Amino acid sequence: MASERLPSRSENYADWYNQLVIQSELADYAPVRGCMIVRPYGWALWENIQAALDLRFKATGHVNAAFPLLIPMSFLEREKEHVEGFSPELAVVTHGGGQELEEPLVVRPTSETIIGHMYAKWIKSYRDLPVLINQWASVVRWEMRTKLFLRTTEFYWQEGHTAHATAEEADAETLQMLHVYADFARNEAAVPVIPGRKSDTERFAGAVHSYSIEAMMGDTRALQAGTSHNLGQNFAKAFEIRYLDQENQLQYCWTTSWGLSTRFIGAIIMVHGDEKGLILPPRLAPYQVVIVPIFRNETEQKVVMEAIDRLQAELAGIRVKLDDRDGMTPGYKYNDWEMRGVPVRMEVGPRDVEKGTVALARRDRPGRDGKAFVPQAGIGETVRLLLEEIQQSLYDRAEAFMQENTHKPESYDAFKEVVQSGWADVWWCGEAACEAKIKEDTKATSRCIPLDQPDGEGVCIHCGKPARERALFARAY
Amino acid sequence: MASERLPSRSENYADWYNQLVIQSELADYAPVRGCMIVRPYGWALWENIQAALDLRFKATGHVNAAFPLLIPMSFLEREKEHVEGFSPELAVVTHGGGQELEEPLVVRPTSETIIGHMYAKWIKSYRDLPVLINQWASVVRWEMRTKLFLRTTEFYWQEGHTAHATAEEADAETLQMLHVYADFARNEAAVPVIPGRKSDTERFAGAVHSYSIEAMMGDTRALQAGTSHNLGQNFAKAFEIRYLDQENQLQYCWTTSWGLSTRFIGAIIMVHGDEKGLILPPRLAPYQVVIVPIFRNETEQKVVMEAIDRLQAELAGIRVKLDDRDGMTPGYKYNDWEMRGVPVRMEVGPRDVEKGTVALARRDRPGRDGKAFVPQAGIGETVRLLLEEIQQSLYDRAEAFMQENTHKPESYDAFKEVVQSGWADVWWCGEAACEAKIKEDTKATSRCIPLDQPDGEGVCIHCGKPARERALFARAY
Repeated sequence: MASERLPSRSENYADWYNQLVIQSELADYAPVRGCMIVRPYGWALWENIQAALDLRFKATGHVNAAFPLLIPMSFLEREKEHVEGFSPELAVVTHGGGQELEEPLVVRPTSETIIGHMYAKWIKSYRDLPVLINQWASVVRWEMRTKLFLRTTEFYWQEGHTAHATAEEADAETLQMLHVYADFARNEAAVPVIPGRKSDTERFAGAVHSYSIEAMMGDTRALQAGTSHNLGQNFAKAFEIRYLDQENQLQYCWTTSWGLSTRFIGAIIMVHGDEKGLILPPRLAPYQVVIVPIFRNETEQKVVMEAIDRLQAELAGIRVKLDDRDGMTPGYKYNDWEMRGVPVRMEVGPRDVEKGTVALARRDRPGRDGKAFVPQAGIGETVRLLLEEIQQSLYDRAEAFMQENTHKPESYDAFKEVVQSGWADVWWCGEAACEAKIKEDTKATSRCIPLDQPDGEGVCIHCGKPARERALFARAY
Repeated sequence: MASERLPSRSENYADWYNQLVIQSELADYAPVRGCMIVRPYGWALWENIQAALDLRFKATGHVNAAFPLLIPMSFLEREKEHVEGFSPELAVVTHGGGQELEEPLVVRPTSETIIGHMYAKWIKSYRDLPVLINQWASVVRWEMRTKLFLRTTEFYWQEGHTAHATAEEADAETLQMLHVYADFARNEAAVPVIPGRKSDTERFAGAVHSYSIEAMMGDTRALQAGTSHNLGQNFAKAFEIRYLDQENQLQYCWTTSWGLSTRFIGAIIMVHGDEKGLILPPRLAPYQVVIVPIFRNETEQKVVMEAIDRLQAELAGIRVKLDDRDGMTPGYKYNDWEMRGVPVRMEVGPRDVEKGTVALARRDRPGRDGKAFVPQAGIGETVRLLLEEIQQSLYDRAEAFMQENTHKPESYDAFKEVVQSGWADVWWCGEAACEAKIKEDTKATSRCIPLDQPDGEGVCIHCGKPARERALFARAY
């Protein structure tokens, strides 16, 4: 409910974000430190994200399954980099059914190990490959500094885990899923992203190559919004995932994993939101249209509600919320739904009914500019087109913002300046030492080496050594 | 894959069940004792169950959300019966992020406590009521003797948690959801059930009244297939869930909870399965139709596959699997899909193409009796009607079986005999001591006191005291 005022987005972005998540009832803090409750409005948004992704996973041949939450501690230890990366973040079950356990179990921080163990059991021959499984689940990674959706001890995600006969297939899968994420981000969430390869420093613990999509938030900081990992044969060797090839030779599989989480909700909030609150992209919004009836007495109420009944029938297939709460003024409701980011508000009063019109107000253009009186006739089609227009307009605005704030500094001094309030797109040598120094100087890290690279080469923005690739550097969430 | 023979269902029901779950690839054992992996075929079945239930939950005004997996141990201790009931089954996290925790956390065995804590925070006035939230999640209860789907340490379920202003509303909600479960069981899973109240002994830890739907398995044992609990004000008082009523007085809420789990998959297997394996009800089956092409050479293959392309287009809206695996005979495929319970098999060979027909084989009537040659023209409608007929026929068969094996013994001697291979529908005094003695004598427990009661009264089958209600007694899973 819009009972409190939001902190100013331009003056205090962090407070604006934290308060907005709570006030819009997307999520709340749990009694266990670092955990969150995803409230019904937030979960409805996540369900729409799930549906959009799941459709794409199934269209690319994947199936869903469910693997256990509890993993023997020894499993993690089988892949050296993996256990080093995850040890500090583990939640450990030491007692079960009133007894101390012989071997402690960890609550899954990610499932490569337990899935690897099962794949080793299931995969016997080349005929069993590829295995293309995804699961929707929550995972637990102990976090010291948490922020709702962006970094919580428990979070919700999907994790895809695939096994292939060849390195080429695993590579193609890794990139395919990166493109699936980019397509989802752009076309469903209206969030422009840059797909690219992570630096060695930023690589997933146990991967050969990690890829990500990176999005620019409203404060110009970067957010890693989805990742896809080529695991090579690292996990296949650690878990003995092998198959008999067509010549009856035993071969190790090549595996991948890829994930996108409720963190993405944070991206949607920060990419589109404004001083008034959330702006949800129509394709994912729990409610695409909110109808606010306006009347001063019972006679008017009757007339207005009858018209709304007819309008609702015309809006079939669109996610509509009728706000018929008693004891609240229309103005209060307008503010409430603006804060909660519903893309279109439909106002219906007695004069509208008389004239056969309704008022439609666009959330992405608050104020008079975004409000129009349209005929009730053909309202379904009118609203459908408007929702599409808003979806496109949100994307265009975010894309323009990302372009404006992505710079190509030619000197390290210029670099240091631009990354304080934007992204730097620069030639980079790719070395970890160089990256560490940049981070020390500026707090900016390499976000990714974009897949889309120019011809030619240059010199590293920091060390001046020859550089064959351009990288994006930015301060990140 | 149908590579191994199933144990005989009539001779060894338990082995038949265990082997069938594994061979049909519904589930597998996890490396952690008592846990399971739900494999893609099993998860697709669960997704269909989820969709059918979720639709019903939303139609009755419920919304989904997500509450944390980790619950402070002290929360469970606030409701005395609750902690007594669940303590022996808890998995306890004692370490997080490399540190010993100040307070141990339990992995949720159920979420009344944490949800109660949040409801206390969210609910302020009568305007906030009712709160009608469901979550899809997994829970952990340490089990000593496990059986895939029926009893595992981690299992998947939905848990609804609602808060109301009055006792009457909470009571109506509890019964409404029991009826939703019964409707789902009968109309989606073709599983006949008896909805009823649980005895005090069988009540949920912390509830005032528990209700369940009880189903008869193929060996006549009972399975509790869904439960709905009226929690009265027990949790409201333990967690201070209060609201200001219209007179501005602070009142405790009345709460309910209700759940249905992957256990239901066990019911589907045991109610419908036969010697050949699974028989899945068409409305929930991952694949409703499997198409098996038959050919001896490339020319025939071309003709047959072209016909199948056309047929598949006609079958839009039906879940169809084309089994085009190389190197397997049609006979092998028939057995494989029979074991995996696909309701209808469509065989297409060169002679069928010539004659403009296909063979349809019903899984519920294996052998000649269930096979028919039908015209390719209008195949979509033919298959749709056949699936409906199979759905109904499965229900009728299971209903007849339940009737045949439900007895009304008039003496305790007769009672003791009938509960060895069926259910006993008897007058019962309702006393715990009497129930305990019956269990000791026969291993049968009171399954429920059916909602549907005859007029009049009688005398308790065991103790001879006056009895105002009839109860169902049976040996149960």
